[in-house]
Amino acid sequence: KAGWTELDVRAVDTVRVLAADAVQKVGNGHPGTAMSLAPAAYLLYQNVMRHDPSDSHWLGRDRFVLSCGHSSLTQYIQLYLSGYGLELDDLKALRTWGSLTPGHPEVHHTNGVEITTGPLGSGLAAAVGMAMAQRRQRGLFDPDAKAGTSPFDHHVWVLASDGDIMEGVTHEASALAGHQELGNLTVIYDQNTISIEDKTEISFSEDVAARYEAYGWNTVTIDWRGDGSSGGYVENIDQLFTALERSRTSRKPTLVVLRTIIAWPAPTKQDTGKSHGSALGDAEIAATKELLGFDPKKSFEVPRSLLTHTRKVVARGKAAHKAWDKGYAAWRKAEPERAALLDRLVAGKLPDGLDKAVPTFAADAKGIATRAASGKVLGALADVAPELWGGSADLAESNNTTMEGQPSFIPKSKQTREWSGGPYGRTLHFGIREFGMGMILNGIALDGLTRPYGGTFLVFSDYMRPSVRLAAIQQAPVTFVWTHDSIGLGEDGPTHQPIEHLAALRAIPSFDVVRPADANETGAAWLTILRNRRPAGLALSRQNLPIVDRSGANGAGKVSGVAKGAYVLYDSSKATPDVILVATGSEVQLAVEARETLEKAGIATRVVSMPCREWFEEQTPAYREKVLPAAVKARVSVEAGVPQGWRDIVGDAGEIIGIDHFGASADAATLFREFGFTAAAVVAAAKKSLKTVKGK
Amino acid sequence: KAGWTELDVRAVDTVRVLAADAVQKVGNGHPGTAMSLAPAAYLLYQNVMRHDPSDSHWLGRDRFVLSCGHSSLTQYIQLYLSGYGLELDDLKALRTWGSLTPGHPEVHHTNGVEITTGPLGSGLAAAVGMAMAQRRQRGLFDPDAKAGTSPFDHHVWVLASDGDIMEGVTHEASALAGHQELGNLTVIYDQNTISIEDKTEISFSEDVAARYEAYGWNTVTIDWRGDGSSGGYVENIDQLFTALERSRTSRKPTLVVLRTIIAWPAPTKQDTGKSHGSALGDAEIAATKELLGFDPKKSFEVPRSLLTHTRKVVARGKAAHKAWDKGYAAWRKAEPERAALLDRLVAGKLPDGLDKAVPTFAADAKGIATRAASGKVLGALADVAPELWGGSADLAESNNTTMEGQPSFIPKSKQTREWSGGPYGRTLHFGIREFGMGMILNGIALDGLTRPYGGTFLVFSDYMRPSVRLAAIQQAPVTFVWTHDSIGLGEDGPTHQPIEHLAALRAIPSFDVVRPADANETGAAWLTILRNRRPAGLALSRQNLPIVDRSGANGAGKVSGVAKGAYVLYDSSKATPDVILVATGSEVQLAVEARETLEKAGIATRVVSMPCREWFEEQTPAYREKVLPAAVKARVSVEAGVPQGWRDIVGDAGEIIGIDHFGASADAATLFREFGFTAAAVVAAAKKSLKTVKGK
Repeated sequence: KAGWTELDVRAVDTVRVLAADAVQKVGNGHPGTAMSLAPAAYLLYQNVMRHDPSDSHWLGRDRFVLSCGHSSLTQYIQLYLSGYGLELDDLKALRTWGSLTPGHPEVHHTNGVEITTGPLGSGLAAAVGMAMAQRRQRGLFDPDAKAGTSPFDHHVWVLASDGDIMEGVTHEASALAGHQELGNLTVIYDQNTISIEDKTEISFSEDVAARYEAYGWNTVTIDWRGDGSSGGYVENIDQLFTALERSRTSRKPTLVVLRTIIAWPAPTKQDTGKSHGSALGDAEIAATKELLGFDPKKSFEVPRSLLTHTRKVVARGKAAHKAWDKGYAAWRKAEPERAALLDRLVAGKLPDGLDKAVPTFAADAKGIATRAASGKVLGALADVAPELWGGSADLAESNNTTMEGQPSFIPKSKQTREWSGGPYGRTLHFGIREFGMGMILNGIALDGLTRPYGGTFLVFSDYMRPSVRLAAIQQAPVTFVWTHDSIGLGEDGPTHQPIEHLAALRAIPSFDVVRPADANETGAAWLTILRNRRPAGLALSRQNLPIVDRSGANGAGKVSGVAKGAYVLYDSSKATPDVILVATGSEVQLAVEARETLEKAGIATRVVSMPCREWFEEQTPAYREKVLPAAVKARVSVEAGVPQGWRDIVGDAGEIIGIDHFGASADAATLFREFGFTAAAVVAAAKKSLKTVKGK
Repeated sequence: KAGWTELDVRAVDTVRVLAADAVQKVGNGHPGTAMSLAPAAYLLYQNVMRHDPSDSHWLGRDRFVLSCGHSSLTQYIQLYLSGYGLELDDLKALRTWGSLTPGHPEVHHTNGVEITTGPLGSGLAAAVGMAMAQRRQRGLFDPDAKAGTSPFDHHVWVLASDGDIMEGVTHEASALAGHQELGNLTVIYDQNTISIEDKTEISFSEDVAARYEAYGWNTVTIDWRGDGSSGGYVENIDQLFTALERSRTSRKPTLVVLRTIIAWPAPTKQDTGKSHGSALGDAEIAATKELLGFDPKKSFEVPRSLLTHTRKVVARGKAAHKAWDKGYAAWRKAEPERAALLDRLVAGKLPDGLDKAVPTFAADAKGIATRAASGKVLGALADVAPELWGGSADLAESNNTTMEGQPSFIPKSKQTREWSGGPYGRTLHFGIREFGMGMILNGIALDGLTRPYGGTFLVFSDYMRPSVRLAAIQQAPVTFVWTHDSIGLGEDGPTHQPIEHLAALRAIPSFDVVRPADANETGAAWLTILRNRRPAGLALSRQNLPIVDRSGANGAGKVSGVAKGAYVLYDSSKATPDVILVATGSEVQLAVEARETLEKAGIATRVVSMPCREWFEEQTPAYREKVLPAAVKARVSVEAGVPQGWRDIVGDAGEIIGIDHFGASADAATLFREFGFTAAAVVAAAKKSLKTVKGK
């Protein structure tokens, strides 16, 4: 039993009227769910979750994910009542410029918020990643402790809505959560059957509990609605409490289907679409307050005594933390090496000698694919950087995402003839679920200690795009490994050939798109990505790419230039080049070949390899000028993608070699030739650009 | 019973060896599924589907969707055997430049292919759209006929794979198919439990049939694997035939779970991940041929007699078509008005007077949101263009996608207090399933007669992006209605504010992004989109935008300029402007305001409204020069999105006003001001650009 007193009931009712008041004050927002979920949220923060409001980064804390992020008040008001630092004025500033209470919860912005949510489905799907991260971390630090006895045991709690449940991404992540037997994950699904188009029955009639059982979840249905009439509505807290407590020790993830009436108990707007996303209006709020025994003339009224009561959770949290500290100290003493690793990860530092671990690839005209180089880099980093782990959405061999010899992260019973492993394994198998993978990677990164990566074909970055955006918004250090990065993938044809994807991904703010030109650039790219600790995507070739001779013999630029985003790979024979060829990835070799022809024709030609435009933009103006002198207007860019965005680099007099239509099904060599990616085309473009410059 | 003879069994085995041969010849591809699905595909084409190979556009035909598009041979070989025009040489040219047999099936490319598939999940999800289209068309043309008696009754048959079933998009579309009670849809789910990472058990252990039952589907499991041993494998054709025939008259969609062994009966590579996506190798193919009684030394061997037998389906198809013609002729006679409508739709023509039906909006400084204008345009077109229908992913009121007074497309039993309708209704309710919506819209458009549209917030175009790409690849005339198209949506904050989406969507080849500046541009945009009959996305404002005075009184350009993608909205006081301001959508008003200030300061300023860059690029060089004279180098672009791509318009000397970071939660006015979208900023940028030009 939760053991609620009248004061707790009053606190919950206070949450309801605060939610209504806050939305009313700003004039827009989502009051309904915050009102009806008030008891569940209060129960979580006051009675269920292990957390310490005085230390929101406590390693042992449970995680809370508000998947229905539009109901941000559900979380903000609990953070206020629990003493996380939010005060009444913050609630009054809801959804206004500069406030701590934006429309949707934002991690790194409001203390106590673990994850940015709002796009439906994203929270629940990322929570699956958090639960996976917990298990992996447990395996890294304390694999032998009995269940529930380790300082690294934490639980992930999710509040989700009808919208979350309808979205495809939660299907993907939930199927995987069931498969992975994530007993450390509990989802309260607020089945209020109301969305923006009013009753969800207009588009939604599936049996959700049966679906989750089909995934291998435990499900519990708790029906507060009763017969659906107002009179029948009973918020049975103890029943919910029991279900949540039981879920804590389950060996499967748990879905609690909680049937509520949205905006309960607003007299006329409960159970309506309007109460989901609009202010209730003064009259309705007054009526609600009267119903609950509040003064209808007062707003934002919270007696000190009530706050004193709810903030007792601080003391309880501190006590729990203290108790945990004991076990943690014992663990540190017993496990000095693991403790050292933990300290490094908590500090966000990379291991010493990481750069030395990255393999060097000898010059080779035939070369290897950058995806293959990436696989070798990952393998070489495996022992040095245990925080690094990942896998693929069913393309392990194609994406080269498996660190050789590392076990799969999988329940023992689900090993297959090809893959062995266990619950603490390292190689992830996402199935054919790219979007779920992206959100799970975000959740892993947000859980805080490890560095996840995940692979698919570049063209399918589209499937996971909302997760890439959320990685960027949250600056979650996820590495997306996107192979088969151009028409160079060949025969699979237009549906599988990325054309617009490099441009489309570069368009995402605060996200790094990295397209190395050879094996050594690939190693340098990985190193830089790990150092930057930001979300990044690697675009890697399916086909072999020649490995540039970096011995210094032929004047090739050092691979350390990769970290600067662009660098002079081969300079021109004259101090100031006549023309600059800028290329990325697999097209750099075309620029190199064209340079030889141009130089022979007496045209001083510089080749710039530009693996990451975002990194280059961060360099000093002096460095950028050194690489791309403003005075040299004759320029050509070469990239097997849409021209969009390259005008900024080549300028009015420049030429852009790209592809602005879909690809075709044929071998790669034919496609490059037919679509105009040849050294001859680069030479012609260089001459055209020189002519344009002279013509001015 | 299917009544197969030995010749049919031989034909099926011939399919298997042809599949192995074709992949072996080109050296890459997917033989396994084509081998094991040979009997199911043959059964569909020979015994189950109503189709006429001599007329692949027959209105009464069933539709076939190969959702596992990588197994394109499954379809190509049946098209060859059925006499659709593919011959042995085409199979030999598999996956090569210019062939009729590309890696994945492509509509408009290979006769008999109804839809481009390959990206997993897309086929099954689009098939749901086809089934919905069939019902809507039935309602338009022959609503009163008894079930199974109308020329407009066709059935949709799908072959899907494990990958299709894992993807989130099929969850979304299948949930909706169950909800919509689409009895005209049958999916054969080839449960071979093999994907690229070998046994799917590594990531996939859900009970798929139970999940589909939870959606409201009929499910039938047919287990050819038996005990999983080779000896236990029995391809019970009659059992499958019975299930398929039963599904034809079901009142729910049907999922047939067909348990197969991939690459059956290849002796060593059956049931392996390798056989999924790689050539089997000469030895394995020879062994398979011996096993099946073929000459292992011969390839692509099809006796004339066998082809004669399988191509009898042409005569059967013609006979079915002829029988159908009778009913069709009777219907035409009885329904001359409906027949006239059908003729117009089959011809792909728009109704007369469409332009007159588009409302005109009077000049208004306060104006209305372009989303509201779009809603009014749709309402005005409702009676004139019955082919137009659509809805929203649970944002009907926000997206203004409901044609006033039109019934919902929904089973009678699923009407709600807010929405009434019936199975032949017009307003679509997709639920919170953006990606499913996108694929369903594609399926509706591909079914051929109607013009679908669907709405969500612009930021969630990310969720549906793979469907937008497939609309573009297939040139399916879908209109995506994306509202709340900038930071102007205000308080919902960064997760809901599109920043990079206009650029990212423009990056997609063959796709039109249209962002009207006021209500009248919105009307012209709809008209142009409908006329162009191409996939397009409308970016519409949440906030009110002033309605330009088009009376001619103040020299504003005509709204007909919208169709050209860009036009002079207000010209400069001098024949040749000193500076050109180019803007789209809600930022056009800033350019207009800035122009007044600049003109007052003696700077001749032209404002160009550029609602669609793709349309502008299609204009003659002369027109483009007229709007943007090359000689005028001082230019400013203004758009509340990333700057990416605007350098092409403004040139080296130009200035770009954009936003290259995520937004924030606050009211729209504050955001525009804080993020630098003001008339004053446009004025300053214009002066800066003029200075740059002079400095040269």
